[in-house]
This record gives sequence, C-alpha cells and structure tokens, in this order.
Amino acid sequence: MGAGAAIASSALAVSLGDPAGVGPELLAEAWARREAEHLGPFFAVGGERLLAEAAALRGLDIEIRRVASPEAALAAFPHALPVLGEWDGDYRPGEPSRGGAGLALASLTEATRLAVTGAAAGVVTGPIAKSRLAEVGFGHPGQTEFVAEACGYDPGDVVMMLAGPNLRTVPLTVHIPLSEVPRHLTEACVERRGRITALALMRDFGIAAPRLAFAALNPHAGEDGRMGDEEARIIAPALARLRAEGIDATGPFAADGLFAPRARATYDVALCAYHDQALIPLKALDFDSGVNVTLGLPIIRTSPDHGTAFAIAGKRLANAGATIASIRMAGECAARRLGR
Amino acid sequence: MGAGAAIASSALAVSLGDPAGVGPELLAEAWARREAEHLGPFFAVGGERLLAEAAALRGLDIEIRRVASPEAALAAFPHALPVLGEWDGDYRPGEPSRGGAGLALASLTEATRLAVTGAAAGVVTGPIAKSRLAEVGFGHPGQTEFVAEACGYDPGDVVMMLAGPNLRTVPLTVHIPLSEVPRHLTEACVERRGRITALALMRDFGIAAPRLAFAALNPHAGEDGRMGDEEARIIAPALARLRAEGIDATGPFAADGLFAPRARATYDVALCAYHDQALIPLKALDFDSGVNVTLGLPIIRTSPDHGTAFAIAGKRLANAGATIASIRMAGECAARRLGR
Repeated sequence: MGAGAAIASSALAVSLGDPAGVGPELLAEAWARREAEHLGPFFAVGGERLLAEAAALRGLDIEIRRVASPEAALAAFPHALPVLGEWDGDYRPGEPSRGGAGLALASLTEATRLAVTGAAAGVVTGPIAKSRLAEVGFGHPGQTEFVAEACGYDPGDVVMMLAGPNLRTVPLTVHIPLSEVPRHLTEACVERRGRITALALMRDFGIAAPRLAFAALNPHAGEDGRMGDEEARIIAPALARLRAEGIDATGPFAADGLFAPRARATYDVALCAYHDQALIPLKALDFDSGVNVTLGLPIIRTSPDHGTAFAIAGKRLANAGATIASIRMAGECAARRLGR
Repeated sequence: MGAGAAIASSALAVSLGDPAGVGPELLAEAWARREAEHLGPFFAVGGERLLAEAAALRGLDIEIRRVASPEAALAAFPHALPVLGEWDGDYRPGEPSRGGAGLALASLTEATRLAVTGAAAGVVTGPIAKSRLAEVGFGHPGQTEFVAEACGYDPGDVVMMLAGPNLRTVPLTVHIPLSEVPRHLTEACVERRGRITALALMRDFGIAAPRLAFAALNPHAGEDGRMGDEEARIIAPALARLRAEGIDATGPFAADGLFAPRARATYDVALCAYHDQALIPLKALDFDSGVNVTLGLPIIRTSPDHGTAFAIAGKRLANAGATIASIRMAGECAARRLGR
C-alpha cells in the first residue's frame, strides 16, 4: 500500500450501485489504482462475475476474489478486489433492468448493514437510479435517507455535505421545489444543521475549530431588506445562537461572492439555503471529484456525487475521480473516529 | 497600440464610478496597460485631478490630459489618459461623500449621453454605490436601468449578461426576493429575454448561431414534476417558441450540472432563472474578470462586475482585470456593430 494510506482495522463496504450504470467499472478502477491513490482497504458487496466483466470491458487486468468475511476482505485487498456476498447478475451496461435494480438494492442494504454492525469501517454507496429502485420496493427519497433509517435515525437529523478539493458545501434544504425553500428554511433548520455540520467537521474531518459560512437566501443578501427579509428574520438569529455555543458561524453572506477564490479561503464549509446554491459551485469547481458525505450518523457514509450515467456506462468514458475520492474520504474519516 | 486592438472611429466613454471607490485607480491602470492589453481608445468623463491623485497613489506614472471633444480624446489616447469634462473633486479613497456621489452621477450621465448621441463608441460605467447615488437624486435600481431609460427603452426590454473568460450567463429575473422568483419567471419573460440574448450574441459578439442553454428553476430540473413543475409549465413552452423562430434554445437543464466544464463547452450562454443561479458560477470561475454587459440597447454598454470596494480603495489591492475586460469587450462589440 502507498505511504498515505489510512491504517485500518477493518475494510470499507462498497455497494455496487445500479449494475447498468458506471458504478461497477469505477469500483474496479478504484481498486486497480489503490496504490497510486493511497486507498485503504475496501470490498464490494456482491457482483463477483459482474465486476469481472465490467473490469474487462474497461480494459483492466485485475483479479476479483470472493471472500467469506470482512476480515478475509482485509487480507485479500492487496492482491485482489474482494467481493463479499453471493448476489450477482449479468453485466449489461446502459440497459437498466428490474433484476439489476434488485441487485443494487441488495448490495446497498447489506453494505449498510455491515457498517451499522461495525463489521465494515464504513459504507461507500455506488450510484443508483431512484426511480428504478422504487420499482423493487425502495421507498426512500434517496440513499442518504435509507442509510439514516438503517441507523435508526430520522433523515431530518442528518446532513448532506458535498466535498471536493476546492470546496465543501451543505444544502440546508434539499429535494424540494424552489418555491417551497423560503417556507422550509426555518431557524430550527439552520441552527440544527449548522450544529451537526460543525460537530462532524471536528470529529470526522479533524478540523479543531471549523469555520462555517452561511449563504444568504436572497440576492445581495437581501440588501438590507429591500430584496427579502429571511436573512435578518431567520438566518441571523440562528447564527447568533450557534455562536453563543462557541461555533464559528458567520454570515449570511451574499451567495454570489461566497464561492470566489478569496472568499473560499475564509471558511471550511459553506452552508447554503437550497440545493442548487450548494451544488452549482461544487460541480462548477470540482465536477469529477465531488463526494457526497452524510454527516451526523453513527457510521461513516460517503458516495460519489454523480448518477448512474447509463449513457456512458461500459464505454471507458466515466471518470473514477469521485469514486476514488469517496473511498479515500470514508477511510480517512473512519481512521479519525478510531483516533489513528 | 497593440496588434489586436479594434479599429475605432471614436473612443469609448468611461464613467468614473464613485470616486471613493476603486473606479478611478482601475481606470488609470487600464490606460497604463492599454498596449499590453490591446485596448482600443477610451476617455474618462470628468475627474482630471482626481484621476491624477488616484494614479499616483497606485504608483502609476502616467499623464492625464484634459481634452475638449471625443475626437480630441481619440488623438490624445496613445499619449495620455484623456479626460473630457470639467467635473472633478478631491480623491478620498474609502471615504464616500455626497460630493463624490454627485460627481459619480454627473460622470455617468454625461458618459451615457455621449454614447446615445453617437459621440462616443459606447459607454463603460464604473462602480457606484446605489444607496449613495440615491441620496443625490438617482432614482433607478441600478446603472443598467439608468442607461436603458437614457436610450428611451423600458428597462424590462433589456437584458443583463455576465461574461467572463469561461462563461456567459443571463439572469432572467434579477433583483427580487427569491420567494418572488417563481411568480416573475413567466413564459413571456423567458421567451423575450431569450430572443434579446440571441440577437445580441449575433450582432455584438459575432456568434452566427448562438447556442442558448436554459437552466431549470427546481433541483434536478423538477425530476418529472416531483420537485416543481415550472420546467414543463413555463420554461419548456417558451423554449419551443424560440426554437420555432430558429433560435438554438435548449433545456431546461438541471442547474447544478450546467456549469461543469464539459457542459459549458456545449453552449454560448446559460440563461438562468434567478440572480444567484447566474452569478454564483460566474464569480466562482471568473471572479477577477467578469463583465456586466447590457444586451438589447441601441448603444454598447459594459461595466466591471464588481462594486465600489470602498474598503480596499487607494490601497493598490483592487484587481483591474474586470475593468480592462469591460473596456476590451465594449470596444470589440462597437467594432462589430460598425462591421470592422
């Protein structure tokens, strides 16, 4: 292993994602590049044959090895991509199917279970198509909510953070119509998610005194109330309470300037009022290496910040940067929780 | 003059902006760098003494020369920064005053008039503080509206475009609270502003068949109506009408992916539903060189996409990139209208 690899007592569980998408080929490539990328140990949950086909189509000459336990995966990892579990299917890139969705759900469910029980150091979830998983009984808005409930947590008590080499952002509201954002951006939401974010940056990211910068909802931060009053009415009081707890919470800042290079140097994470405010700058700056990390859980969970990309699956076009970054970040966070 | 300079029959008029801000020093620096930056001829409107003081404090050894006419400015430009008009004041960087606001307004008014009458090739407006100008009788929301009305145009019939080296964006709605965006984003607004944008890119930017990409209002472009329906109800019908006119209008696209590098290569301008959706990616990618250009006017008007920056005025800290880019773009657009 490379010099920068985290010392791990257990490996990360990685779910396949939809097998018709880019998940399997990127998982195989991440293992092939484990030394150059300083990745700690991980194993795939299911998909032994499928991963071998995906690796071959991508031109990767690697060994895939079925293992009987997470401990066996740890031992096998330097020599082969370990696969735990019997679930498998045919590799049909670009052709999503009901069977593939079922495999994706089984892999996600078991990978999460292994993290919750402590058998795995954490879970990295591959990209799924929500609408397809819904057809095989998946009732959650997304994998974040699924993982939260598997931990016995209310999805409202966890926070989605997007992290790239240049920027970390948190959307305070997520998958709702833009017209409903003002109603959902409550003082309680800002305060609670700000606190969860601060604690997670300390515990899992090794930042002793994280600097949280909050974006305004309105253009020019409302310009003293001339273009909206949520800044003074909602966000500022919540930030005052966070500061009273000793959290370095600043803002609300006009969102358009908050992601310029000099501004980015002044904070560790930007907390945004809505989905696109957080995702636009992240994808503009860090498109091929964005990690979606769930904060506030008893387990470590990351995911590449991209979808199944059915259209380019199996064509050697998908970039493995986000998958590699997700595995690396999960390993680093897991090591920090263990105090290593 | 440098080899790439536009051939001009008249010079651009540049307003000073608030004299307590960074406008004067950046105008002086733009002239000092005119050859290296291939800038065509321009002149300042007012501020002879003030510009000399601003240049000296910035460490620029340049000549400032009062001229009696735009034609005289054209002749003087290779040798000195030409100044037309008697308005002047003391240079007090970082100390905005009523007198300074009055000077800024006089400079803006005259610079615009010279462009409207054709005596100047176009107008480049320096940064003002709207609240301060309001104290001396400026009743417009911003300089864009002022210039539109000086041309006899309804401000609703012109379009603000932000342009940098990596990206052009148009906010379809601008200075309104976020909660009012869904109400203002009408089919007529999308269609009309899309058309103005397409025509301006052809006429002023030399793009024969401009590719317009429209951003969605809701996250994931509404995900088939599950997170908002404005995409199908408002934006799509407007785009269909634009396409029926032969305009290359595509979308609505999920906004978070629209500013990633590969996506940016597929369009000439991104038309956005609201202020921050357009300004966040522009400032994240092109912070020091963003130009605000007004489309749909009978005259050319550009402006650096930053404010007065009172806090750093006179300290040699302000970056002249946006001022230089504004002057260059105005010169190029003016030359295209003249068919040169």
